[in-house]
Amino acid sequence: MLVVKIGGSIFANRANLIADFAAYAKQNKAILCHGGAAESTELAKKTGVETKYLTNESGMKWRYSTAQQLELMQMTLAGKINKTLVAELQKLGVNAIGLSGLDGALLCARQKIVNASEIGADGTAGKLKVVRDDFTGKIDAVNSDLLSLLISNGYTPVIAPLALSENFEPLNTHGDRAAAQIASAMRANALAILTDVDGYFDPFPTNLVKRIDAASLPSTVQNASGGMKRKLVAAQEALGGGVKKVLIANGTKENPLTGALNGNGTTIE
Amino acid sequence: MLVVKIGGSIFANRANLIADFAAYAKQNKAILCHGGAAESTELAKKTGVETKYLTNESGMKWRYSTAQQLELMQMTLAGKINKTLVAELQKLGVNAIGLSGLDGALLCARQKIVNASEIGADGTAGKLKVVRDDFTGKIDAVNSDLLSLLISNGYTPVIAPLALSENFEPLNTHGDRAAAQIASAMRANALAILTDVDGYFDPFPTNLVKRIDAASLPSTVQNASGGMKRKLVAAQEALGGGVKKVLIANGTKENPLTGALNGNGTTIE
Repeated sequence: MLVVKIGGSIFANRANLIADFAAYAKQNKAILCHGGAAESTELAKKTGVETKYLTNESGMKWRYSTAQQLELMQMTLAGKINKTLVAELQKLGVNAIGLSGLDGALLCARQKIVNASEIGADGTAGKLKVVRDDFTGKIDAVNSDLLSLLISNGYTPVIAPLALSENFEPLNTHGDRAAAQIASAMRANALAILTDVDGYFDPFPTNLVKRIDAASLPSTVQNASGGMKRKLVAAQEALGGGVKKVLIANGTKENPLTGALNGNGTTIE
Repeated sequence: MLVVKIGGSIFANRANLIADFAAYAKQNKAILCHGGAAESTELAKKTGVETKYLTNESGMKWRYSTAQQLELMQMTLAGKINKTLVAELQKLGVNAIGLSGLDGALLCARQKIVNASEIGADGTAGKLKVVRDDFTGKIDAVNSDLLSLLISNGYTPVIAPLALSENFEPLNTHGDRAAAQIASAMRANALAILTDVDGYFDPFPTNLVKRIDAASLPSTVQNASGGMKRKLVAAQEALGGGVKKVLIANGTKENPLTGALNGNGTTIE
């Protein structure tokens, strides 16, 4: 079993990856997870909704997922992106089925109520306060029975990273970490995180790190920043959950999944 | 097996129906189909996309479902409405799973390429021409195996009326007729079409027709017009497909599904 995550940053540039994933999924059990925050931001702009960000005392920054933003995410993640990927895979002979984490309670999460500051239009953080209307969640259960049922009947799941809260409200979750939780729950052999860079660089952009072993992963996480840091945290969660290896690679190249499986990019094991 | 269709016109006023459907679905096998054209029109307005209509020589009028409009429908039908209904049913203890007709090739359809006229802003029809970029379809296959698999494992399907074309493109289909095809494929005992009027009136709005038998249905279809005519066509298709009875009733009343099953509204059998 292989879990593949296609990042929102390469959605517009996905043809190579979709073709390669389809060829793989026709021969093997596979799950496709996706992101799509950029598309939501785009729809927010078009509909006149302001996209805001929060930050905490340790300097992490994330999207302020208000109820209004969640509705836009339902539309872009579970509607536009998920169904577009499903139709493309169907065209390539893969019996894809699109689900969000809400469907069949596939991804259950706890809303993170934290102290955070809203980042203003000028980029400065406001007063630290308890933020209760940020519908961002941390996944704590995956309905692996549903995924197994579908896969054993010939379907290939395509998953949008929304989750169901304890109050049965939709929550936004981080796409890479959702994929890690799914890979762990499904006891996947590998999780491939495909994005718009060739892997983890140290230093960036001159030295691509080909291999990180589990022992050195915590210090690598410490050194990393931004989106790559979260991918490494997701890798840590996947390895901790029993996934044998995590690949971080460029999803826009020719046969990018085959390449990642053959050791292009960064292999973490 | 009961198939319930909740019309887009009562989506904003759905609380009674969702509660009643949830109570039913906890005890019985059921499928919820929905519409949502009005929500798509709303999103089109917000994003500056013009919603146009087509008409044919026999005076039928329908939405001009261009590729751009289909993307909006994916967002509103498969994203917003479908996932909102799923979360609400999950809250009420129903293990709902949302699908569009694209997922697992649930609804396969043929694109209708017809002679039609575009209706201008002034309401007059333009020149009759072959319209190739109207992605509206007529369903010719339902993946009933997928629905049976989910239902026999305790899931309640919630279905958005998009379909997969022969070219694997998303198509818009008529919600009532999609529900009729699903009810036929699943050999449902009944199809309940719940809308914003009490049933079929003749004449409108003074005389609610409580019962229409199969023999008199064709002449009733002839007499009807607009949205009600399409509901009656859907009823005809469902009865023709082996569904025992079709109920058309008001979905906004107290316990509207129980009421419809007890003979409020119009019963067609």
